[in-house]
Amino acid sequence: VADLSKLSINTLTNKPLPFEELVNLYARKGVPAFSPWHTEIDSVGLSVAKKMIADSGLSVTSMCLCGLFSNEGRENRSDVLAHNRRVLDIAAEVGAPYVTIVPGGILPGTKSIQDTLDYNFDCVAETLEHANSVGVGLALEPLHPIYLADWSGVNTLKTANDWCEKLGDGIGVAVDIYHVWWDPNLPEEITRASQAGTLLAYCVGDFLDPTSHPLNDRGLMGDGVIDIPSITKLVEDAGYDGPYEVELFTSTWWVEDQGVFIDEIKDRFVRFV
Amino acid sequence: VADLSKLSINTLTNKPLPFEELVNLYARKGVPAFSPWHTEIDSVGLSVAKKMIADSGLSVTSMCLCGLFSNEGRENRSDVLAHNRRVLDIAAEVGAPYVTIVPGGILPGTKSIQDTLDYNFDCVAETLEHANSVGVGLALEPLHPIYLADWSGVNTLKTANDWCEKLGDGIGVAVDIYHVWWDPNLPEEITRASQAGTLLAYCVGDFLDPTSHPLNDRGLMGDGVIDIPSITKLVEDAGYDGPYEVELFTSTWWVEDQGVFIDEIKDRFVRFV
Repeated sequence: VADLSKLSINTLTNKPLPFEELVNLYARKGVPAFSPWHTEIDSVGLSVAKKMIADSGLSVTSMCLCGLFSNEGRENRSDVLAHNRRVLDIAAEVGAPYVTIVPGGILPGTKSIQDTLDYNFDCVAETLEHANSVGVGLALEPLHPIYLADWSGVNTLKTANDWCEKLGDGIGVAVDIYHVWWDPNLPEEITRASQAGTLLAYCVGDFLDPTSHPLNDRGLMGDGVIDIPSITKLVEDAGYDGPYEVELFTSTWWVEDQGVFIDEIKDRFVRFV
Repeated sequence: VADLSKLSINTLTNKPLPFEELVNLYARKGVPAFSPWHTEIDSVGLSVAKKMIADSGLSVTSMCLCGLFSNEGRENRSDVLAHNRRVLDIAAEVGAPYVTIVPGGILPGTKSIQDTLDYNFDCVAETLEHANSVGVGLALEPLHPIYLADWSGVNTLKTANDWCEKLGDGIGVAVDIYHVWWDPNLPEEITRASQAGTLLAYCVGDFLDPTSHPLNDRGLMGDGVIDIPSITKLVEDAGYDGPYEVELFTSTWWVEDQGVFIDEIKDRFVRFV
């Protein structure tokens, strides 16, 4: 059973709400921590955002999103790297211990997974230098293989662990149930990350059966087919004691009252995580 | 470049057409071979179907579908096994050298991937006995991890190869590009199947970016992001010289004229496979 003190909500979960409302609602609902997207911070401006967060009393457990290098094409490499440095600067300002990084989908014009991985690996390495210089970690999140085309060629925890091993200090992995629940190597790769000291984040959600859309039909914990407690046990047994982040891309709940949704998240969190 | 003599079309690709029209259209369009679903055979009756196939001059390269054991629940085990034996009997009658087998999704009421795999492995083993007795092979097709909930817990070629190794004679693997293109272990597992003499089938298609639906938005070869020739080279280098089957679940093309669609398939087959 998960304790509510471990709950962190990613702001994309409550996408319809503007930043100020979101922060106030989390605070009012007793959500102890959250994970904003840099676009949310930008929507109000950095200094206003910092004040709102400080006033709310919420902890910032992480920030989204670095990466998506290949999506912009090789010709925009310096721009996308500059953008990533800026995201890390914002994270440092709002006190996010790390930023989630998703390297990017198939490099335009190539159809080559290998070229995509090589290109993105170099970009991650360069971004990591800046991350280390501003004291913010990078959490490399392997995505479900369904997102290889448009979001990430790093689609197993094994590949993410391999990258972290090569990249060295300052980068670890984020384990999001939705992305890795299918993976036969999950237990051994969680152990591997734990032994390397790179198990940075744990995210919960559920997989709906049927799923109507590849991106925006993620399930509230308990509504799907994932044995969530067994994976929570894996990360806990591996020594993870950080927050459990709820990040749901859900066109079903985005049209509902977000206060009701947050109540439901809290209820499911203690019952199904 | 693929030769049209290697083309086989799975009847689900042209879902809107009734069986007789389908067979006639394939023959008229110079499609040399096809792969029917048992439901298509049932729709006209076995003896009529056999006559239609013989008259058309088409080869039957495989048949669909065995498996989906767990989907029916443990309580219907004997029924689903009997159904599978019947599918194999039909395959033997129409001269299909093998039937594609997809074990099934998460066992209802369990949320356990391991229980699902164990249950389905036993059912496959039992089905294999009947397959061997009627002289029809089983082609175990690993499905994309997105189908774990509802279609198959065998979601990597490695798992499929492991199963074949344990199950022995009469079962091999089907490599469908759509399901395995993302897999970092693909080259080594194709080689492994080849060395074991169990590389039974090769299926082509493409992955669209973006993909609007997890099941019914597969792409015509050349419309997506998969480097198809590189995978064709892998299976050819592994000694595969059987047909290349086109199986597209596509709500986009299902509403179009199927003759036009078949022309397009032939064109794409020689240009992009």
